[in-house]
Formats: sequence, structure tokens, C-alpha cells
Amino acid sequence: MTVDARILAGLRAAPWGVSGSELARQLGMTRAGVWTHIEELRALGYDIEASPHLGYRLLGAPDLLHADDLSARLGNTRVVGREIHVFQETTSTNDVAARLARGGAAEGAVVFAESQSKGRGRLGRTWISPEGKGLWFTVLLRPNIPPQETTLLTVAAATALSRAVTQQTGLVPEIKWPNDLLIRGRKLAGILTEMRAELDQVQEVLLGIGMNVNLEAGDFPAPLRATTTSLMIEMGQKINRAELAVAILRELDLDYQAVAEGRFERLVEQWEERCTTLGCQVAIRLGDRVIRGRAESLDDDGALLVRGTHGHLERIVGGDVTVEKLVQ
Amino acid sequence: MTVDARILAGLRAAPWGVSGSELARQLGMTRAGVWTHIEELRALGYDIEASPHLGYRLLGAPDLLHADDLSARLGNTRVVGREIHVFQETTSTNDVAARLARGGAAEGAVVFAESQSKGRGRLGRTWISPEGKGLWFTVLLRPNIPPQETTLLTVAAATALSRAVTQQTGLVPEIKWPNDLLIRGRKLAGILTEMRAELDQVQEVLLGIGMNVNLEAGDFPAPLRATTTSLMIEMGQKINRAELAVAILRELDLDYQAVAEGRFERLVEQWEERCTTLGCQVAIRLGDRVIRGRAESLDDDGALLVRGTHGHLERIVGGDVTVEKLVQ
Repeated sequence: MTVDARILAGLRAAPWGVSGSELARQLGMTRAGVWTHIEELRALGYDIEASPHLGYRLLGAPDLLHADDLSARLGNTRVVGREIHVFQETTSTNDVAARLARGGAAEGAVVFAESQSKGRGRLGRTWISPEGKGLWFTVLLRPNIPPQETTLLTVAAATALSRAVTQQTGLVPEIKWPNDLLIRGRKLAGILTEMRAELDQVQEVLLGIGMNVNLEAGDFPAPLRATTTSLMIEMGQKINRAELAVAILRELDLDYQAVAEGRFERLVEQWEERCTTLGCQVAIRLGDRVIRGRAESLDDDGALLVRGTHGHLERIVGGDVTVEKLVQ
Repeated sequence: MTVDARILAGLRAAPWGVSGSELARQLGMTRAGVWTHIEELRALGYDIEASPHLGYRLLGAPDLLHADDLSARLGNTRVVGREIHVFQETTSTNDVAARLARGGAAEGAVVFAESQSKGRGRLGRTWISPEGKGLWFTVLLRPNIPPQETTLLTVAAATALSRAVTQQTGLVPEIKWPNDLLIRGRKLAGILTEMRAELDQVQEVLLGIGMNVNLEAGDFPAPLRATTTSLMIEMGQKINRAELAVAILRELDLDYQAVAEGRFERLVEQWEERCTTLGCQVAIRLGDRVIRGRAESLDDDGALLVRGTHGHLERIVGGDVTVEKLVQ
């Protein structure tokens, strides 16, 4: 952890204030050194009170993603978030993470961007990523799994995202298999899973996540307004992005651990509770082909099992799902 | 095609000689311009005779890979080799091809290197790639297939490589599923298939191929000498690398077309004819797990079907195969 991260962690651990000399002792530096860092944090927008009686107190944090602060809030996780990077603007966080991965970035490295100029959804589609209004980020993973099990990670990420949103807002997002979170049928978040792999071994997975946090209806292009939403639109108030980000990383870390240890049953349970796709009559477009049937369950690899019109089960690992109508 | 490639193509089309004025006419340039390019090609080692009666004649080509010359020899293919790059030394041609791919290189682009400092085999193993003695190259493909069908491309590449070797040398390499070519049980060539993919769609495939052409026993590290070979070791004479390279690219182009059009049966037939794995008792290591059984056949995706000791079929998409003993 950097000095800034440790100062913020120290301040957060002492909501009633901590003296400069105590902070200096914790960090092994001089009181003047602490004061310099406090001034820098204030310049970034952190509201830090300094009183002769109470010492330093953190009264408020700015609405920005600050790598040190995210690390300080996150504390120790097993894998996810062990290294955090925040960029003001990128083309796409998946692209940046891919470059970091080639440079040898640690597993669990997370790349956030305040805005993306070329945010991507699945199959090369555009993802709207206006500055400071969402969480646009990518988690770099190096799981020891064959390529066909990567679907599991998308399923795990969807449940983790959904749980974190519930913790922070009380809202319960629905999961649309495999990669979308919806509220009232409107898209709140999406997951773009990209991998590099040999035939039988994944080399790296980029879990790209876009969540519409504080977007207003006007932030979406007109044709998308009827099918998209944000937490702010749903709650009628702004959401603290940094807190939400930390909650998400923590839940992702838990779910990734579950996948790594083969504890998939609990994930599937949670997933099934929140999934709107299961039990529905669906049409799934795979390239030129459309498969119709009833989405029955997930298999062990996270693939969707669809009972076709002739009664046979099809195993679907991806594709565009349209829910056609509810089967009673 | 570049001017050099067109001059070499013109020379090859006229084994008894072509006049400078005729070449100049074909290329739409002056005779002096043609002469300048002929001099450049001579400087590279091309043996080009110029006689007042017969004009220019190509008597010999140097033992080097020259992108223009490879293009000229290859002529029109459907996809493979539409763009050819040759590097004197690279870390690994798969790494270079990955960079070219991100820069928007065309599908079918091929990257050769005279030597690799970090040649890779499967699962991060080292591949010995001494200068000027082998064919170390990568073909960039962008097939419209799901990730699990990528095994097909390895199978197709193995049959294409094997056919090209037979054309050029009369030798009939055996295929060891999924990615090795053997002669008398010793490794002649390997294929490293790497992909970038979303869950249900391959974005790019890098077909990395290493073939031991003119290596001598002393070129291999001592511990590998008993298990490796080269075409020169087998034939007792040097093989023309450029001709072999062109033959391989042409066969790869044919097989890739077959995969793209779903004509997999003919491939499987050829593959089964040359495969030493089928019908054998095998042990396949998948991470920590070892699967034992009889390799029975390939399925539609190129996966190996292995009949386990309890009679059930296992579908294997990769792994380290050891042939344990022949089943009569």
C-alpha cells in the first residue's frame, strides 16, 4: 500500500479522529511528512478536518476513483484487487488490462477508467461510458481452467455484481444469462469476458465490467433509453461509486475463490435465485442460427441447458438471448 | 505484390530467360529500373544470369526466407499468406503476430522468423529455433467459430503440414494428436494454437508452427536428441526451406477453406490415415489428472474420444498424450 492509501486507511479506522503524531507513528514517518500527504489528499478533494483536540478526521471523499483509496478501503483480498490502476480516460479497460497482462501484471489486477472512448460490449458492440458516472473496469485473472469453463467466471461475476448492488442499494438486479444485469427488465450492467488460451488451458481472462451507476436518462443515446437504466435512475439519488466498487471487488474475490476451489453449487443456487432466463421460453441467436426452447438450468461449466421444441437438450455457451414469453 | 516479388515471379515463369525489355513491359517500368532491382536481388544472394541472347535467367535462390519471394512463389491463395512478413530474429512469431493482429493485420497474414530467441511450445515450453535451419512461423486467422472448435484448426494444420512434407520429401510424417508431427517416433514439428476469444466467438487464432528442417543432431540440446529429428537428418540432405514453406502455406490454405466450409470429413480421413494416436492405449495428462484408455476417434470438433477402462467415452480437447502400448 502507498502512503496515501495507508493514511486514508488510518483515517477511516478512526472516525472520531486520530492525532498527527499517532498517524506518523503508524506510518513510520514524521508529522510534517503526514501533513504534506494530508494536503495532497485535500487537493484531490478529500475533506479532512484538522483540529487541535481531535487531530485529523476524514469528513468526506470526492466522487472520484482513486487507486490508493480503493486499495485502502478494500483491505486484504485473496486475488481480486491486489493491484489497482485508475485511468482518467482509456479506449477500453479490457485493452489496457491486456497490455498490463502482457507486461506481467499480477493476477487480480484491476483497471478502472473514469471514462472510456471505445467502451465495448459483447461481439464488438459499443458500451456508453461517460466520465465519472459509472464503474468501467476490468479484472485480470489467470485461472487454471480449460477454455470451455470460462463461462463459469461470467456466471460467478454476475452473481457477485448482483450481491454487491443489493448490499449497497437494496435493489435486487436480475441476471440475464450469461452476462447482463437488469432492473425492471432494463440493462444496468454488462460483463464482457475475453480470454487468451491454448486449446486446453486458459492463459488469461479479462473480466470487463460496465455498470451504469450515476447516469441520467439523458446520458444514454435516445434509442437506448427504453432499455437501459442506472442505479441513480432507480434510486433517485447518487450512489457512492468508490464504496460500490469496493463491494464489487470483494464479492468478485469471494466468487473467484469459489470457482477456483470448485465450489460451484452455492454459486449456481444464488445465480438461479436471481436469474430471469431460467424457466423462460427463449430464442438464442448463434451467428446465423436461432435456437428456440425453454431455458432449464446451468450445467457444471456454466453453460445454459435449453430444452428444444423436439425435447432434446442443447448446451449453449453464449449467444444473444431473447426471452420470448413466460411459461407458466 | 512488390516489384521484387513481381520480378521473381517473372523470372520463375521464364526458366529459359526473359529479356529486360519484356520484364520492363510486364512491370510497367524502364529497363534501367528493372536492372536496379535485379542488382538488389543479386545482393541478397539470388543468382540471376544476364546474357545478351537469353536476357535474365534465375539460376538459384539463396537459403533465406524473403517475403517478396515467398509471395511470388505462393501466387494466389484464398486466405493464408495474403500478407507475409519475415523477421531476422524475434522473441516468438506468435508474439509478433499477436501485435500485428492488434494493429489490424489481414486474416491470413504470416510471420516468419529466421530465428526465435523465445520460441514456445505448448504450455510455455521452450522450442529450439536456431537461425536459418527451420521454419518458425505463425499464421493469423479470424475464423467465425466458437472457441471449442479451435481444436479443428490444429487438426487441419497437422494434416496440411504432413501433406506438404510428403510432397517435398516423400517422407510421410505421423500425427500425434493434437499438435505434433513425428518421423520414426521423433518430433519433427509442433503446432502451438493460441486464441483470443469471447465466450462464444473466436476473435483471432494464432497458428504457431515450428518445423525442424535443416537442423543437425548437434543443434538440439543433448537431452532432446533421442526424441527429436529434422528433415535433413531423415533425408541426409538439405531441404529448400522456401519451397517447403510455400507448399505448407498452400496446403494450410486448402485445409482452412475446408474447415471454414464445414468440409471436415475429408480432413478427418486424412488425419486418421496419418495418426499414430488412434487405436492406441494412451495416457493423457490434464493438469493433475491422468486419463487412461484407448484413443478411438475424433469427434466433429476435433476432440479426441478416448474409451476409458470402464467403457465410457471421454472427450479430450488437449493435454499431454503418452502412447502406452499398442492394442492388437
